[in-house]
Amino acid sequence: MKLRSNELLRRKIYMVVFRSDTPAGKLFDLVLLWLILFSILSVFLESVASIRQNYLSYIRAAEWFFTIIFTIEYILRIYSSRKPLKYIFSFLGLIDLIAFLPGYLSLFLTGGQYLVVVRAFRLLRVFRILKLSRFLYEGNILSTALKSSMHKIIVFILSVITLVTIIGTLMYIIEGDKSGFTSIPVSIYWAIVTITTVGYGDISPQTPMGQLLASILMIIGYGIIAVPTGIVSVEMARATEEAKEKCEYCQAPIYPRTAKFCSNCGKERPGEKQVFS
Amino acid sequence: MKLRSNELLRRKIYMVVFRSDTPAGKLFDLVLLWLILFSILSVFLESVASIRQNYLSYIRAAEWFFTIIFTIEYILRIYSSRKPLKYIFSFLGLIDLIAFLPGYLSLFLTGGQYLVVVRAFRLLRVFRILKLSRFLYEGNILSTALKSSMHKIIVFILSVITLVTIIGTLMYIIEGDKSGFTSIPVSIYWAIVTITTVGYGDISPQTPMGQLLASILMIIGYGIIAVPTGIVSVEMARATEEAKEKCEYCQAPIYPRTAKFCSNCGKERPGEKQVFS
Amino acid sequence: MKLRSNELLRRKIYMVVFRSDTPAGKLFDLVLLWLILFSILSVFLESVASIRQNYLSYIRAAEWFFTIIFTIEYILRIYSSRKPLKYIFSFLGLIDLIAFLPGYLSLFLTGGQYLVVVRAFRLLRVFRILKLSRFLYEGNILSTALKSSMHKIIVFILSVITLVTIIGTLMYIIEGDKSGFTSIPVSIYWAIVTITTVGYGDISPQTPMGQLLASILMIIGYGIIAVPTGIVSVEMARATEEAKEKCEYCQAPIYPRTAKFCSNCGKERPGEKQVFS
Amino acid sequence: MKLRSNELLRRKIYMVVFRSDTPAGKLFDLVLLWLILFSILSVFLESVASIRQNYLSYIRAAEWFFTIIFTIEYILRIYSSRKPLKYIFSFLGLIDLIAFLPGYLSLFLTGGQYLVVVRAFRLLRVFRILKLSRFLYEGNILSTALKSSMHKIIVFILSVITLVTIIGTLMYIIEGDKSGFTSIPVSIYWAIVTITTVGYGDISPQTPMGQLLASILMIIGYGIIAVPTGIVSVEMARATEEAKEKCEYCQAPIYPRTAKFCSNCGKERPGEKQVFS
Repeated sequence: MKLRSNELLRRKIYMVVFRSDTPAGKLFDLVLLWLILFSILSVFLESVASIRQNYLSYIRAAEWFFTIIFTIEYILRIYSSRKPLKYIFSFLGLIDLIAFLPGYLSLFLTGGQYLVVVRAFRLLRVFRILKLSRFLYEGNILSTALKSSMHKIIVFILSVITLVTIIGTLMYIIEGDKSGFTSIPVSIYWAIVTITTVGYGDISPQTPMGQLLASILMIIGYGIIAVPTGIVSVEMARATEEAKEKCEYCQAPIYPRTAKFCSNCGKERPGEKQVFS
Repeated sequence: MKLRSNELLRRKIYMVVFRSDTPAGKLFDLVLLWLILFSILSVFLESVASIRQNYLSYIRAAEWFFTIIFTIEYILRIYSSRKPLKYIFSFLGLIDLIAFLPGYLSLFLTGGQYLVVVRAFRLLRVFRILKLSRFLYEGNILSTALKSSMHKIIVFILSVITLVTIIGTLMYIIEGDKSGFTSIPVSIYWAIVTITTVGYGDISPQTPMGQLLASILMIIGYGIIAVPTGIVSVEMARATEEAKEKCEYCQAPIYPRTAKFCSNCGKERPGEKQVFS
Repeated sequence: MKLRSNELLRRKIYMVVFRSDTPAGKLFDLVLLWLILFSILSVFLESVASIRQNYLSYIRAAEWFFTIIFTIEYILRIYSSRKPLKYIFSFLGLIDLIAFLPGYLSLFLTGGQYLVVVRAFRLLRVFRILKLSRFLYEGNILSTALKSSMHKIIVFILSVITLVTIIGTLMYIIEGDKSGFTSIPVSIYWAIVTITTVGYGDISPQTPMGQLLASILMIIGYGIIAVPTGIVSVEMARATEEAKEKCEYCQAPIYPRTAKFCSNCGKERPGEKQVFS
Repeated sequence: MKLRSNELLRRKIYMVVFRSDTPAGKLFDLVLLWLILFSILSVFLESVASIRQNYLSYIRAAEWFFTIIFTIEYILRIYSSRKPLKYIFSFLGLIDLIAFLPGYLSLFLTGGQYLVVVRAFRLLRVFRILKLSRFLYEGNILSTALKSSMHKIIVFILSVITLVTIIGTLMYIIEGDKSGFTSIPVSIYWAIVTITTVGYGDISPQTPMGQLLASILMIIGYGIIAVPTGIVSVEMARATEEAKEKCEYCQAPIYPRTAKFCSNCGKERPGEKQVFS
């Protein structure tokens, strides 16, 4: 099958930017990884007041460098992709777009009245970190366990929300404005801070009744943290069980994972295999 | 069997308000769900000072709207229920009553001297959130696991209470009034805040001895959080095990849940089945 | 066998105060339980400044009431015990003595300079709560699991102590006196507060380096809390497994616990049995 | 085989300082353990301002005592070791060097301008605590379980870092400088403090939007703490399973660990055996 040189180039680029099973593809991935990390670092540094005042021009230059690089990467991906529209509207495609778009938008929105919007847009570039999800391979035990416990965890979170709503309201009645419980939403915020055992202390009960109710809430929170843990442990055990390596001959599970021979049928195992677990 | 038109109406209403296996019943449930959520939102908004001052008339109007709607719902439920008294004194029946009663009570208790009582009553409407429990189906693994670990968890909580009582008292002796440990109940409150790893910081030890004792308490709290988690994990594993789907022919457990054939006897499984787990 | 009426009385008292398998013995235990709880409550109330000032005479009266009651209980226990000396020097015997001794000591040590000592002694009566341990039956799964995980938990706690020592020292070097890290012991106290996720916030890092190190410590603490939990979960699963009810005929484990017949041999199970689990 | 007296001495010293299976070796270990603990205590005490001012000469004397003792120990270890270079560059060898080196370095760096460096060097002696690792025997279940869960825990920590980066940036946009969110790195520090449920409260959200986002972050943190726990629990269960004691005759696992006879083949078990678990 003869390909036009244009098509040949398109496939070559595809191999480099989308795949990582060639030396060039691996190098591209590695360079991209570091570019993403440095571009996020520059967003961080820009936000530190003392650095912004002294090195603004350097940061701006780096910013334009990253914006242009990520634009080129985006164009290459669209050009080489077999189904460009599918890529553009995929999760990773949108992330790639967000990675350079704020750079150009800040060019048009330079008026003083748009300042907050501009700042927000510029910081959105931190979402570039999601580009790293390209480097996390799918289909692992973690996500399997989380997906199958999703239903139970949602029921659990709904119960917690119901609990903090009721206790937050009671605390608002008991404590009132004096101790910082200025409204029900704020009291619910306090109840979440407490039940999750975060405990900032920016709002804390001052009356004996409030401290008693808070103590009960804390002990509840301390006790029920066991529930999501129990859910995930059980699902993780099940997912691990299902993902366990089996003998090719007799299907008996292999113990330990470094075994040279099957402990059941005694057949030799065919060399090292890459298993995720 | 001939039914009077009155009885026919009663059964029709019953199907709509109590059941959710007809289109009308499902719509009723959905509308009710949103009404509950909006009525709780209005309680929240009323508690925020700035909103209360500017939009009080709107909130009051919404409040009367919800009170009347929930009254009508309550009357319909009593009218259509086969055993009205049983419904009235059931958990859900009492919740339904609390959902609208404070609205009318606030009408009679408008005197300035009852202000606190009125506020408390009006806020009790937040308990309407418990009406949502109608939408959580019973008999799930979570509640089974929690019920069978109840005994052990109570023993655990009693041990924790004994521990915080003793350490709270010791801290009151060691730290005294200066650091905020003003009485034994307050010291016990501090010990609960500490052992549950909440740590507000409104009260914290200042003397070396107090900090040493606090450190010990924290490490104990950090270690024993494993206990309820272990209890619930084990019970959850057992409940999951007992709820596992079995093959209809040979009773072998089905792995994975999406299997088309039984892995033991090889018989085809009869279509998709709704399983809770 | 003929007993002197004296000996008969002694045995009768013994059955009431030491045993709880007769109605009188159970009543005695119940009354004692409430007396202990109320006597602890009176110690708590005495420590609250506002209550002490207003109701001192009532509290003192209650105090003498409890002191005399517990003295009588102590005398009865010594009188009826078969081996009085063994009882006196047993753990519970000493707790019983401490329960009323401070009451009399406060009579002789009324000088202002002994006040704090007296107060300390009086608070020791809080150890009366340990008498409640009489009401927690031994030999349960919790303590079995904790005992067999003891070795691993000690190794874990030693590792945590090593870690907080090193990180505490590093923070003392990095942060210095300004942020409250005034000495290495205080810095270690802060590291314990942080790694256990308590987080009072009375001391918190202010320099970028300190905040970075603190972040690392927090993530470590968040990750390794899994370790004791994992240890206890596994031991608890093992202890539960070993405590599981077995069929009397074929020794197969009984599932579910409410089963009427053994699922293995089909023999009927002999009525309800009280099992601890 | 005749050995020169020099070589004989070398081997004798080796038995004492490196091994602990002779009375002399055990005594050496015990003395060393206490010397390490006391030397760390002296570092702690020196850092407390009030103690440093009053007892400086005593602490300095103790410091030189420990420095010289650890130097002698180090020389003995090098002298008696069969492969001195291997020992010097081993982990424990470097720890042994760090234990006394700062003592001598502080002699040369006494100039006022090196003050911070000197202080840092002197405090490095706290790393002597790592010498205690000599007393923790390798090959235990804990480290096996941790090692095999390493891959999953790293994926988990990377996900957490991505999450706190995004939420930290959003909070910086929402809250701004007023509430202490002065830069993105500080906001990320806050997000770590929150998601790990530490919650110092030195920085906390003040706007309703910020409190809402913080609440979501807390509930996420509360939910996902289950993930590392689940990972480690499952691995710990597996490691325990693999380390379980087997019957010498039929290889059936032994239950309970105190069993006198194998429950499978009925053969008597050959006396007490030291098992780690």
